[in-house]
Amino acid sequence: MTTNKTPVTVVGLGLMGQALAGTFLRNGHPTTVWNRTAAKADALVAEGARLADSPADAVTASPLVIVCVSNYDAVRELLDPLGEVFDGRVLVNLTSGTSEGARQTAEWAARRGGSYLDGAIMALPTAIGTAEATVFYSGPQSAFAQHESTLRLLGAGTTYLGTDHGLSSLYDVALLGVMWSVLNGFLQGAALVGTAGVDASTFASIAGPLTGTVRDWLPDLGRQIDKGDYTTRDSTIDTHLGAMEHLVQESESLGINADLPRLVKALADRAVADGHGGSDYAAMIEQFRRPAGNRP
Amino acid sequence: MTTNKTPVTVVGLGLMGQALAGTFLRNGHPTTVWNRTAAKADALVAEGARLADSPADAVTASPLVIVCVSNYDAVRELLDPLGEVFDGRVLVNLTSGTSEGARQTAEWAARRGGSYLDGAIMALPTAIGTAEATVFYSGPQSAFAQHESTLRLLGAGTTYLGTDHGLSSLYDVALLGVMWSVLNGFLQGAALVGTAGVDASTFASIAGPLTGTVRDWLPDLGRQIDKGDYTTRDSTIDTHLGAMEHLVQESESLGINADLPRLVKALADRAVADGHGGSDYAAMIEQFRRPAGNRP
Ligand SMILES: NC(=O)c1ccc[n+]([C@@H]2O[C@H](COP(=O)([O-])OP(=O)(O)OC[C@H]3O[C@@H](n4cnc5c(N)ncnc54)[C@H](OP(=O)(O)O)[C@@H]3O)[C@@H](O)[C@H]2O)c1
Ligand SMILES: NC(=O)c1ccc[n+]([C@@H]2O[C@H](COP(=O)([O-])OP(=O)(O)OC[C@H]3O[C@@H](n4cnc5c(N)ncnc54)[C@H](OP(=O)(O)O)[C@@H]3O)[C@@H](O)[C@H]2O)c1
Repeated sequence: MTTNKTPVTVVGLGLMGQALAGTFLRNGHPTTVWNRTAAKADALVAEGARLADSPADAVTASPLVIVCVSNYDAVRELLDPLGEVFDGRVLVNLTSGTSEGARQTAEWAARRGGSYLDGAIMALPTAIGTAEATVFYSGPQSAFAQHESTLRLLGAGTTYLGTDHGLSSLYDVALLGVMWSVLNGFLQGAALVGTAGVDASTFASIAGPLTGTVRDWLPDLGRQIDKGDYTTRDSTIDTHLGAMEHLVQESESLGINADLPRLVKALADRAVADGHGGSDYAAMIEQFRRPAGNRP
Repeated sequence: MTTNKTPVTVVGLGLMGQALAGTFLRNGHPTTVWNRTAAKADALVAEGARLADSPADAVTASPLVIVCVSNYDAVRELLDPLGEVFDGRVLVNLTSGTSEGARQTAEWAARRGGSYLDGAIMALPTAIGTAEATVFYSGPQSAFAQHESTLRLLGAGTTYLGTDHGLSSLYDVALLGVMWSVLNGFLQGAALVGTAGVDASTFASIAGPLTGTVRDWLPDLGRQIDKGDYTTRDSTIDTHLGAMEHLVQESESLGINADLPRLVKALADRAVADGHGGSDYAAMIEQFRRPAGNRP
């Protein structure tokens, strides 16, 4: 059987690598795979994948090479010994890491003549290939454009972020941070009302709609931050601070964890110390932009 | 002009008290007002309110008495000297405070023979009387039912939470905590991607939809917590922790504030130390339910 679909190589067949390779295979792409522990390729080989003899064999098999292993150190350990095999290929690194690691790997790839895209997968392996999966890419736009239709098979939320290779990792942790904040805010609240015997499902039924309301404020907040205009049309940070004190007091006197409330209040205290008591909450961005101890 | 609408008294005419009294007036309720600084009643009197001579005169003028001053100390200072004037009336305290303050004020009111509702206003004065305003009430259901139609004038989000007088204050701070968490999660992320020159509006366009996704998980999270079943169908706390380390590293190495990321990670570290590394994120509720230092 011949096909005009782009051949793809997937290096690294952990839970995620297997899901990636399986998706390309099921969409009819000639798929070459390699994994340190060869047995993890068995199911994919049974589905029609070719198991490469070596990382070099794997990389040279396809114009599009995807690597997804535990961390960036493993990426370099694997690919560094291969020499000049990347020329004319697009290497897409879907291993999670930091923006610095991504930028360094991009420099390394540039020295090898390869075209490099860094990526970050915001999805579980089971969601790969579905509408639920978001995958971010950053690096040269031409490399993304060349393989966009193939990469888009991995998830409907395939998003190109820009040329700076660090962007995928930055968006990844920034969005995970939003996720943990929403979850932790909910858990803190559930613990508070739980002291009065209110169950967490009941609290979710009220906290959910409120979360939606606050989400709808984000575009405005973003615009205020971008303009650097912290004039408030409603509540000042001073007003927030009064209510934050209640949150700390409640948490402490009810004997639940008060670390998150204390941090929320400490950040606002610092904004007030910087002269932003009369400003909109948007002015809090200045506290997040620099280490805790630093003053402007 | 006579009316069959319930006469209402509003004690305390700060920004909020004026909005409350104005709403009752504009809806045709005979409205009596009192404020320590009498001049703040001028506009309301011009609209038809009656200015009482004293707090006692104000309280005895109506079966429904609303008090909204700076804090609970001010409430007690005002009402304590009045003696047995509350008999047969419903006192609704919309002053912000803690659940303990609400329960103590309820005991105080019970000794005076009054029926007491504690409330919390989740809205700005400008939103009072609109679809946007949420006001929580807690205390005897009969007292709420008796005046529900009048109280509902203050906002479409009028919600009775239960007989425990502390519930309004608890929900108030719990929901404000959710609000600050969403806002701070967004600000942390905006600061992170901002180091790569991404503007906050651009980040909002991606963080907003994600916030909506996480909001949709809350009912399930609530059910898991209520069942105490922390079996995960997707990510374990161990997996989250790996990504939390990236968030901390990114924040530290990019020179932005890492306090919130460090706290997020510290809470998860404690869950792992408690044996919950393989559990769903729902198990984190146990960290929020007790002071940081306490082990189960
Ligand atoms: N699983 C998820 O839910 C998820 C979600 C988003 C992103 N990710 C990211 O995707 C990447 C892979 O995750 P995963 O779930 O597939 O992990 P995993 O199941 O633990 O698999 C790890 C893979 O890396 C390989 N590996 C590790 N060190 C290596 C080395 N020094 N040399 C060669 N190969 C090495 C392993 O090979 P062996 O089989 O020989 O050990 C295996 O193929 C990670 O960066 C992860 O953060 C995962
Ligand atoms: N404004 C908001 O956005 C908002 C939103 C939600 C909840 N709330 C809550 O609503 C309550 C009132 O807020 P506000 O905005 O109206 O505050 P405000 O404008 O500062 O007014 C405070 C009111 O309390 C009175 N007061 C203070 N101490 C007193 C005392 N010892 N004896 C008698 N009266 C005293 C003041 O009287 P004088 O005029 O004589 O000083 C004034 O009427 C607070 O608990 C606040 O947390 C406000």
